[in-house]
Amino acid sequence: MEEKKEPRMVNGVNIEQLFGTLDLIKQNPEVAKFKFRATNKWINGTHCQATVRDFYGALKEDTSRQPAVFHMDEPPVLLGNSQGTNPVEYLLVALSGCLTTSLVAHASAKGVKIRSVESRYEGDIDLQGFLGLSEDVPVGYQDIRVYFKIDADASDPEKEDMVRMAQKYSPVFNTITKSAPVSVHLES
Amino acid sequence: MEEKKEPRMVNGVNIEQLFGTLDLIKQNPEVAKFKFRATNKWINGTHCQATVRDFYGALKEDTSRQPAVFHMDEPPVLLGNSQGTNPVEYLLVALSGCLTTSLVAHASAKGVKIRSVESRYEGDIDLQGFLGLSEDVPVGYQDIRVYFKIDADASDPEKEDMVRMAQKYSPVFNTITKSAPVSVHLES
Repeated sequence: MEEKKEPRMVNGVNIEQLFGTLDLIKQNPEVAKFKFRATNKWINGTHCQATVRDFYGALKEDTSRQPAVFHMDEPPVLLGNSQGTNPVEYLLVALSGCLTTSLVAHASAKGVKIRSVESRYEGDIDLQGFLGLSEDVPVGYQDIRVYFKIDADASDPEKEDMVRMAQKYSPVFNTITKSAPVSVHLES
Repeated sequence: MEEKKEPRMVNGVNIEQLFGTLDLIKQNPEVAKFKFRATNKWINGTHCQATVRDFYGALKEDTSRQPAVFHMDEPPVLLGNSQGTNPVEYLLVALSGCLTTSLVAHASAKGVKIRSVESRYEGDIDLQGFLGLSEDVPVGYQDIRVYFKIDADASDPEKEDMVRMAQKYSPVFNTITKSAPVSVHLES
């Protein structure tokens, strides 16, 4: 009788696929090159709508997902009608997902069993920057604080290490803390 | 007969409220200090869920909005089940909303009539960074490209200026291109 091999799952992460992907990339680093995309359409006032669908990665275009639409708006105190979460809050959402996924993926690769991961995020913005009232005030976030609570088969030092790995390997965390070049073009 | 004053709206932006806010902040810069927040809860594998609700700004806590929930997941090629858009795509969503809102707000303050603003975003990530396969490859976005199409009562040089203002005053653009400190703590 043939034995059917089940994928080894740790915390819902397919470890066989993870290490298989690592081997593929070691053989051909081009496999690791991804292009992520979004489009945006202004609606009215501070209300706009972004759409995410396709991406490029693992040597091919992926158009398998349905379009995901995100509404963004400001609250009334910032001239909007709260018809969506605002863009600087979406940045915290992105950071939260990326740190969490990085933490879980790297802990799972080490075989650490996780029961729960919760985190909260708070960032300071001084709108004097956005409004052009001061050249001395940063326009972007001045400081972002993150607090993790982890329930896992791990000691406190091991949990501290999980939080360090999350920061070391999270693409959004590294984009924010180390910066990335953004070129903006006008098309006719 | 009393004359009822209608707010002057340009592109859906309340210009009286905008200049009123500027005056308030000039009198008391504390009005401009905002704290934005999110929470995150891991679900399984690469799937997690963020929630945005309250924020602090204009000298008070704002809890008027309903909670907004965002699911994040990776596509199958990145070990997930596409139960949400992935975190690095959310970063592009945030950037798109912030550049668009900044562009519209600053053009509206100048009285420029806008008919449409559309933009698209593409960013490069080499997963050798995330996977720990190379210390030389950046973990975050290596390059992000943005393309705007604007239909407005403005000449091409004026549209170029609108795109420059968007970059100068967008908090998310400035967070990404100039970096921001993020401190990550473990709570017991």
